[in-house]
Amino acid sequence: MLVEDLPTPALWADADALGSNLATMAAAWPGTRLRPHVKAHKCTSLAREQASRGHTAFTCATPAEVLGLARAGLGDDILLANQCLDPGRLEAMAHSGARVTVAVDSEATIAAAAMAGIAEVLIEVRVGFRCGCAVGQAGPLAATARRLGLGVRGVMGYEGHAMGLTQRSERERLTAGAMERLAEAHEAVGGEIVSGGGTGTWDINHWVTELQAGSYVLMDTAYSAQDQPFVQGLFISATVISVAPGYAVCDAGLKALGMDHGNPTIEGAEIIYCADEHTAFVPDTPVRVGDRITVIPAHIDPTMAKHPVLHVAQRGEVVDTWEIDLRHW
Amino acid sequence: MLVEDLPTPALWADADALGSNLATMAAAWPGTRLRPHVKAHKCTSLAREQASRGHTAFTCATPAEVLGLARAGLGDDILLANQCLDPGRLEAMAHSGARVTVAVDSEATIAAAAMAGIAEVLIEVRVGFRCGCAVGQAGPLAATARRLGLGVRGVMGYEGHAMGLTQRSERERLTAGAMERLAEAHEAVGGEIVSGGGTGTWDINHWVTELQAGSYVLMDTAYSAQDQPFVQGLFISATVISVAPGYAVCDAGLKALGMDHGNPTIEGAEIIYCADEHTAFVPDTPVRVGDRITVIPAHIDPTMAKHPVLHVAQRGEVVDTWEIDLRHW
Repeated sequence: MLVEDLPTPALWADADALGSNLATMAAAWPGTRLRPHVKAHKCTSLAREQASRGHTAFTCATPAEVLGLARAGLGDDILLANQCLDPGRLEAMAHSGARVTVAVDSEATIAAAAMAGIAEVLIEVRVGFRCGCAVGQAGPLAATARRLGLGVRGVMGYEGHAMGLTQRSERERLTAGAMERLAEAHEAVGGEIVSGGGTGTWDINHWVTELQAGSYVLMDTAYSAQDQPFVQGLFISATVISVAPGYAVCDAGLKALGMDHGNPTIEGAEIIYCADEHTAFVPDTPVRVGDRITVIPAHIDPTMAKHPVLHVAQRGEVVDTWEIDLRHW
Repeated sequence: MLVEDLPTPALWADADALGSNLATMAAAWPGTRLRPHVKAHKCTSLAREQASRGHTAFTCATPAEVLGLARAGLGDDILLANQCLDPGRLEAMAHSGARVTVAVDSEATIAAAAMAGIAEVLIEVRVGFRCGCAVGQAGPLAATARRLGLGVRGVMGYEGHAMGLTQRSERERLTAGAMERLAEAHEAVGGEIVSGGGTGTWDINHWVTELQAGSYVLMDTAYSAQDQPFVQGLFISATVISVAPGYAVCDAGLKALGMDHGNPTIEGAEIIYCADEHTAFVPDTPVRVGDRITVIPAHIDPTMAKHPVLHVAQRGEVVDTWEIDLRHW
């Protein structure tokens, strides 16, 4: 089967790009120095590719991702890098058979983890604008966790405000500020782990003991605007379904695309707008009804989460089809 | 089970709001004068509620929606209001046992429909900026379709550029312009159907013989900015998972929300930003970790498409849980 013959809209990954990205990152952050974030792809088959390159510890954003990896036998060392208060989900993770560590940043999330039988935690520290305790709270929270019988493996903090900036010097400045705070918290907390970072700071963040990068595997137009060695590998094959004077319409709309980073890109065309199941665009050279075109998503994470499967292609031929099986919560 | 006890993020509909919206629209557009667009909800259980109010003909945007309705026994009269060139999907619709009519706007989509055994079509006319032929092409395309053995039931055209405008007079002006062109095409095409319109023009569009409204069932913050009798009925229950000085973070992020119309709304709070699985907000009055809050999606259609189920609640109690079973393509 060729990509050109897949029913559209069809999400596909370029196997060569994927292989190149996996190799580049594995060289820089070998083994468990990289803790790949599976929220970027939500796909155990892709996680298996990462594990086969030596990255056997994973980062998750949802209990569904944790439980799916555990079921798939990828449970050596899974971090839920998020705050969770749900007793049912915490208990399911505690009894999943996997080694599960959860991030905690308050007495409430520490108590919920301990009550559910979770064994190990990281103290999440506020170094950006997501979750996390104040630097000065990290030590006392670690003591509370230990008092409740939890193993405290260290700290985590995500410099999300630095991640997407195109100017490298700004990424460096904000990362340094964030990570100095995380290091200070680590002094108070102890443990062997300092977890953080992402694709935008993979060669900037020298503070963490493990990097939580996810998007590097297949990239998107947002990260591709940075000067990175990772190459665009995620595409949507669409069909031109209607042609009007001056513009055309294809069948990959906003229900097939993560839209929070704005419109997708079609090379050689200007996007007019995305509707539920249509994208209207002005092509540089005329297109005809039935032509296949390639749409590049602006944001990998929510794009993957909208599709049931990811096709893997090499030189235009579909060589594998992977279920995107870690979706929802 | 209470909404407050659902694992979060939990998508839920208010049964009273749903009932009120269904009744208001059924009074104005009774029976098959309304052809509800199921792309707004992608849920056969909700379609069944519409059918029980007399709306037994449906509008779809994807073959998956058509085939799902057909399987659910809601196949009296289904319109695929979209251009389709996929032989496999066209054949599946032709042999679904349902009465399926497809929109066509070119010789290519007419030929694809005829080859696949589709029996009936509407000529889609370009009255906005989505698909559709020029007004002057509608007659010749109808003749082509009839020559290939297709029944031509009439025309359709969607005044999407008028739909979301908050100023009623502008909606009226743009709808009139669009529908006069559709009426002109109808003269040339013949048939009993003039299909179009939506929630934004439900009481403005007096040209169509059937209205394709969908969002009215549960609304969103975009449509709620218009002066409409339909009430907000779609919500996401979220948990406050982290509190920082000046802001808090809940667990309904952009993977749970349609983001193309911008950020969601939290009453009594200002949204800072949405991340994959987090929304950071500034509450007017302090919140605590573990508090439940209600997030109102900005756009119903893509929000529904991101969730596996919709809970239905009455005065805070979950009275039903419906699978969102018409997702994907």
